[in-house]
Amino acid sequence: MPSKPVNPDLQKERSTATFNTREFSVLWAGGEERFKEKKALEKMFLEDPALQDDLPISYLSHKELYEHSLRKACIIGEKIRKLRADGEDGVDTYNALLGGSLGAAILKEGNPLALHYVMFVPTIMGQGTMDQQVEWLSKAWDCEIIGTYAQTELGHGTFLRGLETRADYDASTQEFVINTPSLSAYKWWPGGLGHTANHAVVVAQLYTKGEFRGLAPFIVQLRDSDTHRPMPGIDIGDIGTKLGMKGVNNGYLGLKNVRVPLNNMLMKNQQVLPDGTYVAPKNSVLTYGTMMFVRCALIRDTAQSLAKASTIATRYSAVRRQSPIDPNQPEPQIMDHTTQQLKLFPQIAKAIVFKTTGDGIWNMYNVISGEIEQGNLDRLPEMHALSCCLKAICSADAAAGVETCRLSCGGHGYMDCSNFPTIYGMTTAVCTYEGENTVMLLQTARYLVKVYGQALNGEKLVPTVSYINDAINQTKFVNFDGSLRSIVKAFQFVAANKTRIAYEQIELRRKQGHGTEVAANLCGTFLTAAADLHGRAFLAQTAYTELLALSREVSPELAEVLKVVLELYLVDACLNRIGDFLRFIDLTDQDVTKLEVRLENCLKRLRPNAVSLVDSFDLHDRVLDSALGAYDGNVYEHIFESTKKNPLNKEPVNGAFHKYLKPFMKAHL
Amino acid sequence: MPSKPVNPDLQKERSTATFNTREFSVLWAGGEERFKEKKALEKMFLEDPALQDDLPISYLSHKELYEHSLRKACIIGEKIRKLRADGEDGVDTYNALLGGSLGAAILKEGNPLALHYVMFVPTIMGQGTMDQQVEWLSKAWDCEIIGTYAQTELGHGTFLRGLETRADYDASTQEFVINTPSLSAYKWWPGGLGHTANHAVVVAQLYTKGEFRGLAPFIVQLRDSDTHRPMPGIDIGDIGTKLGMKGVNNGYLGLKNVRVPLNNMLMKNQQVLPDGTYVAPKNSVLTYGTMMFVRCALIRDTAQSLAKASTIATRYSAVRRQSPIDPNQPEPQIMDHTTQQLKLFPQIAKAIVFKTTGDGIWNMYNVISGEIEQGNLDRLPEMHALSCCLKAICSADAAAGVETCRLSCGGHGYMDCSNFPTIYGMTTAVCTYEGENTVMLLQTARYLVKVYGQALNGEKLVPTVSYINDAINQTKFVNFDGSLRSIVKAFQFVAANKTRIAYEQIELRRKQGHGTEVAANLCGTFLTAAADLHGRAFLAQTAYTELLALSREVSPELAEVLKVVLELYLVDACLNRIGDFLRFIDLTDQDVTKLEVRLENCLKRLRPNAVSLVDSFDLHDRVLDSALGAYDGNVYEHIFESTKKNPLNKEPVNGAFHKYLKPFMKAHL
Repeated sequence: MPSKPVNPDLQKERSTATFNTREFSVLWAGGEERFKEKKALEKMFLEDPALQDDLPISYLSHKELYEHSLRKACIIGEKIRKLRADGEDGVDTYNALLGGSLGAAILKEGNPLALHYVMFVPTIMGQGTMDQQVEWLSKAWDCEIIGTYAQTELGHGTFLRGLETRADYDASTQEFVINTPSLSAYKWWPGGLGHTANHAVVVAQLYTKGEFRGLAPFIVQLRDSDTHRPMPGIDIGDIGTKLGMKGVNNGYLGLKNVRVPLNNMLMKNQQVLPDGTYVAPKNSVLTYGTMMFVRCALIRDTAQSLAKASTIATRYSAVRRQSPIDPNQPEPQIMDHTTQQLKLFPQIAKAIVFKTTGDGIWNMYNVISGEIEQGNLDRLPEMHALSCCLKAICSADAAAGVETCRLSCGGHGYMDCSNFPTIYGMTTAVCTYEGENTVMLLQTARYLVKVYGQALNGEKLVPTVSYINDAINQTKFVNFDGSLRSIVKAFQFVAANKTRIAYEQIELRRKQGHGTEVAANLCGTFLTAAADLHGRAFLAQTAYTELLALSREVSPELAEVLKVVLELYLVDACLNRIGDFLRFIDLTDQDVTKLEVRLENCLKRLRPNAVSLVDSFDLHDRVLDSALGAYDGNVYEHIFESTKKNPLNKEPVNGAFHKYLKPFMKAHL
Repeated sequence: MPSKPVNPDLQKERSTATFNTREFSVLWAGGEERFKEKKALEKMFLEDPALQDDLPISYLSHKELYEHSLRKACIIGEKIRKLRADGEDGVDTYNALLGGSLGAAILKEGNPLALHYVMFVPTIMGQGTMDQQVEWLSKAWDCEIIGTYAQTELGHGTFLRGLETRADYDASTQEFVINTPSLSAYKWWPGGLGHTANHAVVVAQLYTKGEFRGLAPFIVQLRDSDTHRPMPGIDIGDIGTKLGMKGVNNGYLGLKNVRVPLNNMLMKNQQVLPDGTYVAPKNSVLTYGTMMFVRCALIRDTAQSLAKASTIATRYSAVRRQSPIDPNQPEPQIMDHTTQQLKLFPQIAKAIVFKTTGDGIWNMYNVISGEIEQGNLDRLPEMHALSCCLKAICSADAAAGVETCRLSCGGHGYMDCSNFPTIYGMTTAVCTYEGENTVMLLQTARYLVKVYGQALNGEKLVPTVSYINDAINQTKFVNFDGSLRSIVKAFQFVAANKTRIAYEQIELRRKQGHGTEVAANLCGTFLTAAADLHGRAFLAQTAYTELLALSREVSPELAEVLKVVLELYLVDACLNRIGDFLRFIDLTDQDVTKLEVRLENCLKRLRPNAVSLVDSFDLHDRVLDSALGAYDGNVYEHIFESTKKNPLNKEPVNGAFHKYLKPFMKAHL
């Protein structure tokens, strides 16, 4: 990868690693074959000169960025078309290109065609009848039409029943008449909706024969297929600049008496007959599947964000020297400051644990969705509860972790050339989309409170919450010996007690005369706290089980490193929730000090392998896109190079001097 | 302020307030006179059409933004010139225009001339001799020359002794020869340095007669005063795009054998005689003064950030309706969700407490700097320690609080038209500049550990750390009755114990054979934790003393509200550090639950006055610059209006369709 000599400090770090980074890289990629595929894709896409930027996109205006993004998106689309023609049909490949690291390396502020591939096409596949699939899918796959998915509205997000857009069936013409009856009903946010898509799946409240039938999806043509001008009744545009995802072309959409044929309603699950008769769906649970699927995928994305941010900050911290520890010595690598280690290393550990958990929950999702297709819905609520809180916790922790990494790089982390601002923009967005985090935690909590009641009644709970059964029979946690196993057990005991308190508080409000729902709202902060601990207990358990299992499969050298990562993760997680531990478990001041000293010890043991651990994530320099984080570690040179691309620096004197500054300076003379 | 009818939900909130918002607004502004001045300045600056933006600046490219910012900066400079000619010389006015809310309303991404006024001119005043002041000050005040302050380097920030730029005195020509001997020695970051300033105070390592003398400041001409072209030996430009402060024109500067006359070294504190004889400064402590001054001012800035963010989020939360609490009821104002209250109201309380503390520490600074000028340095270390940790805590809490407010507004908070991204960019920058937060905490901690040793030796400590004397004689904290006073006392007890642990851990490492400095580095995380608690104990104490004092001076209605704010602040602060409380104080699970229920109760009591509290901050709509936070609460209308300004929406079909998308879509046909 390096074109210049590697910075000697970084080289020294690499040469003293105690494990083989390639072994971990292969593991991280999902095996030798996937590792090779990844390398091949990187070669195909990242070495294409048409997909490289001469000018960093942070220098473009919003409009320029859109045009730039659309150009690249079309090139990617063309390559996907070729891959498909060549028989390549791996979903992983498309995911990598559209949403994964590789996609982000090409279009770091997002792809205006992404929703076409990841929402429009899958929705037709999932909700269209066979006939509808025949009609729409080939056009969509060939990109003869470009679609998006329009659900959220200016005034309505998470609460779907609140959507205002409505579709009234007119049996006389066998058409639906779709309207956004108010400003707050305008569709808002869909990617690619602004100026890119010419079709959308529009979700609307369905009325037939004057009766309300619930939500339904409609394919609506937005723009003329030749001129791209908005169709009659369509008010459409780009919603404007944002914190991140700046190239996505998020759009708004107003509809005024827009008529679509009967067959444009996607009718796999529910039907409207030509006379307006409504046939309800058999099973409304199925939509949970897609949401769970997306949330499980997001957990892996958060791991990737942490991997990127920790790679950049760790390499920088090996190169940057500052503030002598001993005033008689030269300035050390900043990674030698214990305070710096505490910023960086837990993020590395979290990246690994979130990745492991993401993979695990992905497998669990596949098992359970198989069961669901067989009609067995037993584990659906459990899986739903888990995916909700993990999405919330991993996204919040990842966003905070990215910022910790950025701040650990001082002022230089604040520059766009560090790439932290973009990584943060992408990561923090996950806290809000696909179910806002607080709403997610509340959904998990309602499940927890429900099963807590069942456990009180003596029922045996399903695996992921069975620790509540144990805790109910255990008034005191007695075996905290500081072993990793006991930290995991303690996490579960603490989680069970947080659920107990939420349960008791709701019961108390009910006894005070509040209805269940009002009582639950009053106890909202107790509920979110319980869900948070449930997710953290699951992460601790998964980290413990999976990383130990993994270390039995790998070389002893790598196993040793993974065990340090595990210990660091668990001790840090425990100290981050030490208030909860102390509240429910008898620990002394000295016990806590012991944990703190142990954390420091974990940092010290991880220190020699820190750079090699992040090297193992095997993130291409184009994926990192960071002057601070490049593989060769020539930090200052890369920063300086970036200033040479700055359009302001192309002229020694900016025109504004003559126009504004000089007249101002000379005004009094 | 409102030009449209106020949103009825917001109107309802205002009409049910239990106190007079104007009374609080006047208090917040610092009295009736200041309040009127503020209104007059707002009128003068915010109603000037030349200072208004037709196009939101988020749509500009980096280069356009610079030119736009310089244009406005010159208009502001011209107005300042007129104000001075009219005899107006209030420092407050200039501060408000250059750094405060008013300045941010005009140039929300910062002012490229700001450093000229707030660093260049004051440095000449503070470090120049009388003769030098005569020579340079009038030119600088009249803006005949524009300067900046160049200290930090690409490779060197907080640790000043590490700076590489050097000035060698050449007695034969009576000149200094200034060089940046390597890339990492390049000056980096100074605002306005890129293309705006034509002079700078350059800080360099001074050598005379071949001997190293320490740091010294030099006035260096950077650009030709007529053509603005860089002077010989000067390599200069803009460092590039950033997370925030995008209009500041931060620059870099390389110097190659740049010669400046002897008299260009600012010589108030130290001198070089024509023959190269060096006269050392009498007192090196004086530079602490400026740093403390700036840090004290920053605390008030963090309060202002929280005031802005909480105003936007609170008003939005009164207007936005979502997710029924009771499924049979319509969607409530989201502010009725307890979880939402827990996001917003602590930020309002923190804004008030940080403002109060900022004012208090400002007065303390003035007293102590008066003492210092009299030669009494007794309280300097205490004041330094306090200003360091408060800067770190308030900036970190404010940045986190801004993000909490943004996330509480869901997706809409992610849009630039909410103004949260800009407010965050400005606020999080404070974590890094003027002393990076971790370095700040470590400085405080070293002081704490030192005085802890003194206390162990029976010495009586100065006021702000005297709680350590108390705690040393108190093995157990026995009087936690939940009163506000006892929470404050408990905070101090906990802080003293955190310092004890840091002290003991350092002693332990020393006994293990480490030198003091290495031992301190190993204990870095213990040290920062101790400093954090010291600052939080001071905030708790100040909030308690000052807000109670204030409530004795105001109307009973306002007093009632201030007491709720105080209780909410203290209970929330305590629960946020509950791990530390449980560690050192015997509290049961039930005690903690009681505190949590009390927090919920505080939220409920603050709820009716939330909108009126943020109204009291009296932030002009231009200061807020937020579609979500405007006084009239017409959130959706303002968001929609903002899309109409989006240059992408000026054309129904973007050119990129014809250029890229259409050929791609039709390629296979």
